[in-house]
Amino acid sequence: MADKITTMSKYGDAGHGGITRYSLSPEALQARGEFVKRMKAIGAEIKTDDMANIYATLKGSEPDLPNIVMASHCDSVKNGGNYDGILGVMGAMEVLESIADQKIPHKHNITAMIWTNEEGSLYPPAMMSSGVICNDYLPDDIKKNFIHENMLASKSVLDPEKTFGEALEASGYKGAKENRLNNKDYMAMFELHIEQGPILEAAKKDIGVVTCVLGMINYKIKVYGQSDHAGTTPMPYRQDALYGAAKVLQYLHDELDKLDSELVYTTGEIYCHPNVHTVIPDYVEFSIDARHEKPEVIEQVVNVIKNMPKEVVKCKVDYEVAWTRDTVYYDKELVGYVQEAVDELGYSNQKINSGAGHDAQFAAYMMPTTMVFVPSKDGHSHCEPEYTSPEQCTQGASVLLNAVLKCDADK
Amino acid sequence: MADKITTMSKYGDAGHGGITRYSLSPEALQARGEFVKRMKAIGAEIKTDDMANIYATLKGSEPDLPNIVMASHCDSVKNGGNYDGILGVMGAMEVLESIADQKIPHKHNITAMIWTNEEGSLYPPAMMSSGVICNDYLPDDIKKNFIHENMLASKSVLDPEKTFGEALEASGYKGAKENRLNNKDYMAMFELHIEQGPILEAAKKDIGVVTCVLGMINYKIKVYGQSDHAGTTPMPYRQDALYGAAKVLQYLHDELDKLDSELVYTTGEIYCHPNVHTVIPDYVEFSIDARHEKPEVIEQVVNVIKNMPKEVVKCKVDYEVAWTRDTVYYDKELVGYVQEAVDELGYSNQKINSGAGHDAQFAAYMMPTTMVFVPSKDGHSHCEPEYTSPEQCTQGASVLLNAVLKCDADK
Repeated sequence: MADKITTMSKYGDAGHGGITRYSLSPEALQARGEFVKRMKAIGAEIKTDDMANIYATLKGSEPDLPNIVMASHCDSVKNGGNYDGILGVMGAMEVLESIADQKIPHKHNITAMIWTNEEGSLYPPAMMSSGVICNDYLPDDIKKNFIHENMLASKSVLDPEKTFGEALEASGYKGAKENRLNNKDYMAMFELHIEQGPILEAAKKDIGVVTCVLGMINYKIKVYGQSDHAGTTPMPYRQDALYGAAKVLQYLHDELDKLDSELVYTTGEIYCHPNVHTVIPDYVEFSIDARHEKPEVIEQVVNVIKNMPKEVVKCKVDYEVAWTRDTVYYDKELVGYVQEAVDELGYSNQKINSGAGHDAQFAAYMMPTTMVFVPSKDGHSHCEPEYTSPEQCTQGASVLLNAVLKCDADK
Repeated sequence: MADKITTMSKYGDAGHGGITRYSLSPEALQARGEFVKRMKAIGAEIKTDDMANIYATLKGSEPDLPNIVMASHCDSVKNGGNYDGILGVMGAMEVLESIADQKIPHKHNITAMIWTNEEGSLYPPAMMSSGVICNDYLPDDIKKNFIHENMLASKSVLDPEKTFGEALEASGYKGAKENRLNNKDYMAMFELHIEQGPILEAAKKDIGVVTCVLGMINYKIKVYGQSDHAGTTPMPYRQDALYGAAKVLQYLHDELDKLDSELVYTTGEIYCHPNVHTVIPDYVEFSIDARHEKPEVIEQVVNVIKNMPKEVVKCKVDYEVAWTRDTVYYDKELVGYVQEAVDELGYSNQKINSGAGHDAQFAAYMMPTTMVFVPSKDGHSHCEPEYTSPEQCTQGASVLLNAVLKCDADK
């Protein structure tokens, strides 16, 4: 595991501890090459599908049974860390290597898989290829954001002349559509991932047994003022949209803090017009993202937003739904295999939910799916200080191996 | 005047009541062409200097005396109005036309002048050519922002391949350096301008007799948090720089509102990093611009900033001076001519200060200078609803004419 972490961290090394490894970039192709090389070395069969997802499969003793797949991604956000996504790939590699090395008997074919473009950092949206592959099974309002043709036409955020479809063609990893993950040839999916939050570390737990991906809402809050000159407009005449936005933001904190203590909410993005230091802002918009397992708490959040004051410091206040998603519960049987595996290994653990989105959450609409979490140092992720020790990563891979073998034995 | 307003409003017409007429753009060259054509028609002599400032001069009966100049600009901000700047040019044209038509006797040469690039909207900074022409007379901290070579190298905000120097060469208006406005050949400068604020309208006054340009400070307020994932970080673990910034912004309002009621302050510009809806912001910076005639009030503002809490919602708070300028008082004798002219014409009026910057404020460091204001409907400016009626514009031009003639007679 330590060797894999060191090797993979070189592909896209940003020079100060983290990586920038956009999907299908030269750096991501290096990581894919490393995966293919090592998987071929243990005798795995390599396939790719039309979204360049890669499947490395070790044949089982009853190869006509459906496969068990372990999947994650090898792309990163800009200046991301060395664990988000790639840990699940490295863990799956460890599992197949252990099975091959130790000649562990298994009935089903077992597959290690790399999802293409989970982050969507260069070609939006995030979770692009799981959105395409699982499209038939997704709820309508999510489904429409992942139409295959639209994804191929997705423009690079760095160069609008380049599309994801072109990157796919040029990658050398584009394969046949019939190789796509599906619920006839595959019976279960596992994903090992870092927690990306501080809960396991704070609770001094080795492993998080993931039960669901939190439901969430994303709204835009809009504040309308009037642009006037900073030097010539007496204070009582002003309709300052940024001051209005600051007051609304404080209002939301005050009201949301009265709700369930497990609720998380974030105002991460703000847009101010005209955003010139000598002009009073006439329009400010900010995002609010709120997540909780229980729909009734999410409903309370929506009510807080709907009941915001309609006018603040003479500025009109309004809102718009950007998107929402329901809580996705993982498969109880698979969660059970993970729990048994952790308990048998004697690792400290707790049930946990996933606040972040993962390809596994789209796969869960198509087939039985679950996840395993390992701790994130100081809770940091999507940034260079992201860290999980080689020992913790190995514990995660061990849980993954044993859970997969339980699934293999049981079915 | 009505004809001039209609004609000039076509050059850069943005299609919904206002204009976009960047300095030296094709639209600005049309406005310059109109000025030159009409000034030649009344027998004025046209000169330009090396910053493409245009001077149209009617000879006086004692042409060896120094000139009296009336100056403003014909460029606009993006989606600006039809009065900011160009009114001072049209007013100066009206004055020279009246003098020529009515053969009004005058000793001194009288000049109507167009300053190049007052707004600095395409090639920053604002007040660029007055900053260059008056450079030797400016305070050191202002002077350094207007070094001639640096201004020529100023890049277009729309196309970094294009510089102001190139636009100057291509304009057809670049003339000799010896034609620059100076305090040997010119003895006084007047600028007619719209108020750009609501004070005259609210007080039901026709004319503002301008006495000074307000002193101001511009600071950057900086709030440092920690980036973490929006879905995986429990609320008590967060250091949210945007929430911190909202609290600091409210603090500044609370404290500054306790100071003098004439104080104006603006938080017009905000920058949030990484500004992604799923990430807790780790850095937010916003501007604060504060203006008041009296240095002791500005000093109180600086104390409020210096005494801000050093930490808010676990985020470090800091500040940085962007720039400051002292109050610039206009020439008492010239202000007197304006006051006498208004009183004789019987227009309602009041003393007023300028919260906005103007080329006149740099000229004031080099030679006796003053300004005349007319009302702005609803106080709007730097936006398309900017409006001053033809009658009000004409009243401003009448004051300009009579003040210039008083200056001519007195010296």
